[in-house]
Amino acid sequence: MSKSSLTPPGVSMELHAGNRERLVAALSAHLSASARPLRGVAFLKGGEEQTRYCSDYVELFRQESYFAYLFGVQEPGFYGAVDIASGQSILFAPRLSPGHAVWMGVNTLPYFKDRYKVDFVFYVDELAQVLQSQFSEHGETPLLFLLYGKNTDSGNYSKPASFEGIEKFDTDLSTLHPLLTECRVIKSDMELALIQYANDVSSEAHIEVMRQIKPGMKEYQLESIFVGASRYRGCRHCSYTCICATGENSSILHYGHAGAPNDRTLNDGDMALMDMGAEYNFYGSDITCSYPINGKFNRNQTVIYNAVLKAHNDVISHMQPGVKWIDMHKLAEQTILESLKKENIIHGDIAAMMNRRLGAVFMPHGLGHLLGIDTHDPGGYPEGLERPKEPGLRSLRTIRELKEGMVITVEPGCYFIDTLLRHARDDPISSKFFNWEKIEIYKSSGGVRVESNMYVTAQGCKNLTNCPREIREIEAVMAGAPWHSRDTLSST
Amino acid sequence: MSKSSLTPPGVSMELHAGNRERLVAALSAHLSASARPLRGVAFLKGGEEQTRYCSDYVELFRQESYFAYLFGVQEPGFYGAVDIASGQSILFAPRLSPGHAVWMGVNTLPYFKDRYKVDFVFYVDELAQVLQSQFSEHGETPLLFLLYGKNTDSGNYSKPASFEGIEKFDTDLSTLHPLLTECRVIKSDMELALIQYANDVSSEAHIEVMRQIKPGMKEYQLESIFVGASRYRGCRHCSYTCICATGENSSILHYGHAGAPNDRTLNDGDMALMDMGAEYNFYGSDITCSYPINGKFNRNQTVIYNAVLKAHNDVISHMQPGVKWIDMHKLAEQTILESLKKENIIHGDIAAMMNRRLGAVFMPHGLGHLLGIDTHDPGGYPEGLERPKEPGLRSLRTIRELKEGMVITVEPGCYFIDTLLRHARDDPISSKFFNWEKIEIYKSSGGVRVESNMYVTAQGCKNLTNCPREIREIEAVMAGAPWHSRDTLSST
Ligand SMILES: [Mn+2]
Ligand SMILES: [Mn+2]
Repeated sequence: MSKSSLTPPGVSMELHAGNRERLVAALSAHLSASARPLRGVAFLKGGEEQTRYCSDYVELFRQESYFAYLFGVQEPGFYGAVDIASGQSILFAPRLSPGHAVWMGVNTLPYFKDRYKVDFVFYVDELAQVLQSQFSEHGETPLLFLLYGKNTDSGNYSKPASFEGIEKFDTDLSTLHPLLTECRVIKSDMELALIQYANDVSSEAHIEVMRQIKPGMKEYQLESIFVGASRYRGCRHCSYTCICATGENSSILHYGHAGAPNDRTLNDGDMALMDMGAEYNFYGSDITCSYPINGKFNRNQTVIYNAVLKAHNDVISHMQPGVKWIDMHKLAEQTILESLKKENIIHGDIAAMMNRRLGAVFMPHGLGHLLGIDTHDPGGYPEGLERPKEPGLRSLRTIRELKEGMVITVEPGCYFIDTLLRHARDDPISSKFFNWEKIEIYKSSGGVRVESNMYVTAQGCKNLTNCPREIREIEAVMAGAPWHSRDTLSST
Repeated sequence: MSKSSLTPPGVSMELHAGNRERLVAALSAHLSASARPLRGVAFLKGGEEQTRYCSDYVELFRQESYFAYLFGVQEPGFYGAVDIASGQSILFAPRLSPGHAVWMGVNTLPYFKDRYKVDFVFYVDELAQVLQSQFSEHGETPLLFLLYGKNTDSGNYSKPASFEGIEKFDTDLSTLHPLLTECRVIKSDMELALIQYANDVSSEAHIEVMRQIKPGMKEYQLESIFVGASRYRGCRHCSYTCICATGENSSILHYGHAGAPNDRTLNDGDMALMDMGAEYNFYGSDITCSYPINGKFNRNQTVIYNAVLKAHNDVISHMQPGVKWIDMHKLAEQTILESLKKENIIHGDIAAMMNRRLGAVFMPHGLGHLLGIDTHDPGGYPEGLERPKEPGLRSLRTIRELKEGMVITVEPGCYFIDTLLRHARDDPISSKFFNWEKIEIYKSSGGVRVESNMYVTAQGCKNLTNCPREIREIEAVMAGAPWHSRDTLSST
C-alpha cells in the first residue's frame, strides 16, 4: 500500500438533516402552490437485508438510496418519517430479539437517536400507533406521502412503504417521488464534500493501478489493487462493479460482470480501459482512465486517445448552467468524428454524418449522467422531458439543461465494436463514410473512454477527478513520476 | 502486494460433470430402492441478476449454490436439466436482445455449450417444447424432479423452478432436495482442490494482515488488505462479510455487518479476532485468526488464547469417520472450561458445569459447520436428525457423525459477553461457578476464536488451513519471520 495523505472525512448527520430540510421546503412550496393544506408526512421504508436464495449467506447491506439521502441510516429494516409542518423527523427501528446482541452488538433506541440525530426513534411495530397519535390533531386522518415513481434509468418503480394498518391513513402516491428526486439532483456543499472524497480516493487508486500494471498480469489483479486501495481509505463499497477491460475487451461496454469477470491476461501492446469508482458514506464516484499496458502510447493509440480526450476537454470547457446536455453529447460526437476524419478513418461531410447519427457507431452510450448516491443518480428525465429515440441520443440518461449544483459525469468514448460496424457497413449510404481498411487497422486498439466527474458551478464547472489525462502526464506517472494532489491545484 | 507463489488452478468442467454423475447415481439408487421407474429429469433454475431497489445498480451476480454445484454456470438467468436415465445434461440460456452484445459481449449457444461442456444448450424460451420433445417417449408425460426443501441454517425453502407450461409436466417436489443436498456433503477430490486453493489464498492473506497490523490503523484497513490480497490471487468473492473485530468488538459474533462496519481504531494492547475467507470458483473457506495487535501476547491473552487453541487441537486429534460432531462440541467446551478452571476464572465440578450448559456462556456458537459452495454448507440436519434445544448445542449447524469426504470447520471460541455473563450471574446456582472478580479482569481481553477448515479422511482428518497457531509462531510471523507454505509440510 503506497503512502497516502487521504483520511476519511467525518460525516455529520447535518448533511442528512439538510437533505430533509430541502425536501420539506420543496413539499411546502408545492402544497402551497397547489392550494393544498400544509400537512402530511413524507414516509419511507428503508432497505431490507437480503440472504442469498435459500441459504443463510447475508449480503452486505447497502441502504436504499432515497432513504439514505434523507436519514443516512446504515442498518436494514428501518422506516422513516418527516413531518412537513414541523420538519420533525422520526425513525422506526426493527425490534430485535434479546439474543440478537450476542450476534450483532447492542443497538438500542437511544443509540439510534444519538447516531442519526432525528427527533424521535420508535420501534417498527409501533408505527401505526405512533403515526396516528402524532399526526391526527383536530381528529383528521394523517396523510402519508409515499415514495412511488419510475426510475428512468432502470424503468423500475420504487415500492411505496407499507405496514399493517396503513389502510387507516390517507396516502398520496404521486407528490413525493418527483419532488424528492429533484432535491437529489442539486448537491449541497456537504454532499459535494463526500463526492469529492470518493473522487480523491478513486483518483489515487486509479494511479496506483497505473503504476503497477504490466504485461502478464490478470485484469482482476488491477481490480484487486483498486478495491484494496479504496477500502483502505474508508470506501467499503464500490459505486459499481469494476470494469477492467484490456485489449479487445475494452469495446465491451459493461465488461467485468459475472460472465466476463476481468479474467484476461494482459499483453504487451494492449490498451486498458479502467472504469472504477469508490463510494464513501453512500456518495459515489465514477472514473475511467484509458492507457496502454506497457506505459507507452503507440501512434494509433495516440490518435484514438487524443480524439476522446479532446471531446472530454471541449465538453468541459463549454459546461455551465443553462447548457443543454444533449448539445454537449452532440459536441462530443462531432469532436470525435472530426478527429477520426483528420486521420482518414472516416471521410465526407461531418454534418451529414451527424444527421445519420454515425457518431453513435463509435460512441453508442450517452456522454454522461447525474452522479450522487446512485452512480446513475435519478432525475435525468423529470416529467415532461422525453427520452430521444435516435441511436446514441436514446442512450442519454439525461438531456436536461445544466444547473448549478449538479454533479454529472463527462465520459466520451470511441470504440470499434463489431456489431455496430457491421451494421453501418451493411447500410449502403452510411457505409460510404467509413474507410474500412483503416477501420480494420484501428480495430485492434479496442475502445477508449475518458471519464471525469464534474460539479456545475455558477459560471462553469469544476472537475472533481484528479487523474493524469494528457498522454505525456500518463506516460510520466506510469514511469514513476509523482502526481500532484488536488490541493496543490488552483480550482478551475 | 507481497510475493506469492499462488496461482489460481484451472477449473475443469469435469468437476461439475462429476457432481451431476453423483446426483444421477443417488437418484437412480433411490428410485430403484423405492421400486419406481428409472425416469425423470432433475430440473433446476439458476439465480437471477438483482438490481438495487428501483435503481439500475446491478449487484455482482453470484450463482445460486445448488445450480453452481451441478453446472458451474457463472451467468444469471439459466435453467438446467439432468436426465436420470441417460445422464445427459441440458442448459437453457436466456435469449438476449441483439443490442446486448454491445454492452455485455457476445454469448452464443455454442459458446455456452463449449464453456460448460453440457450435452445440449437451448434458449430459455424453448424450455417447455424441448423438455416435451426430449423426454416424452412412449407418450408419457415427462417427470420433473424440482428442488424444494428447507435450508436448516436459514429456515428458508429453496424455490422450485417454474416456467410457462410447467402444468403440462408431472412434477416431484420431495425427492431431489435431500438427495442433492447429501451429494454436496461429501466432497470429490476436484472440489477439495478448490477448497484447498481458497484456503491457501486466505491463509496467506491472513498472514499479510498479521504482518501489517499495528495500533492506530482502522479495522477496515485490515479488511482491505485481506480482500485486496484474495482478489489479487483470483478470488473475487469472499465467502462471507469480513469480521475484523478488535478490542471489545471481538465478543460480537457477527461484527462487521453494515451497522458495525469494521470502523474502530486499533489500540495498543487490544486483541484482534479476524474471521475472513476467500471463495474460488464458488468454493469457499472460513478461517479465523486471533492475536494481539501489537504482536505480543500478554499473560491474560495467553491464558484465553491457549484455552481456545487447546480445544481446537484436541478436537482435531479426535476427528475421524464415525465420531459424532455433538461430542466434539462438548469436548471443546469441556477443554475450555478446564483451562478456565486452572486459572481460577471458574471453579467447581466441570461435569456439573457441563450439565448446566455453562460452556455456552463462553462459547454460545456451534463448534463448526460443513463448508463448501456455501460457507454454511447444507446437509447438517438430514431428515430424522433433530436440532438440540440446549444452549450452545442448539447453535450447532450439524450434529452428524463425521464421514470421509466431509469438509467441516473447527472453530472453538471463548468470549466474555455481557448479556450472557449477566444472565449466568442472575442465576443463583450457575453464578457460584464463576469467579466474578477474575471475570471482570479478563473481560477486557474480549473474545478469541481459532478456526480451521478440516477434511475428514478415512483414518482421521487433514487441516486445509495453514496459519500460524502456536503463540510463538504467531509472534514470530508478526515480527517478520517467514512462514512455511503448505507444500513444504508433510500432510497429516
Ligand atoms: Mn459513468
Ligand atoms: Mn465458520
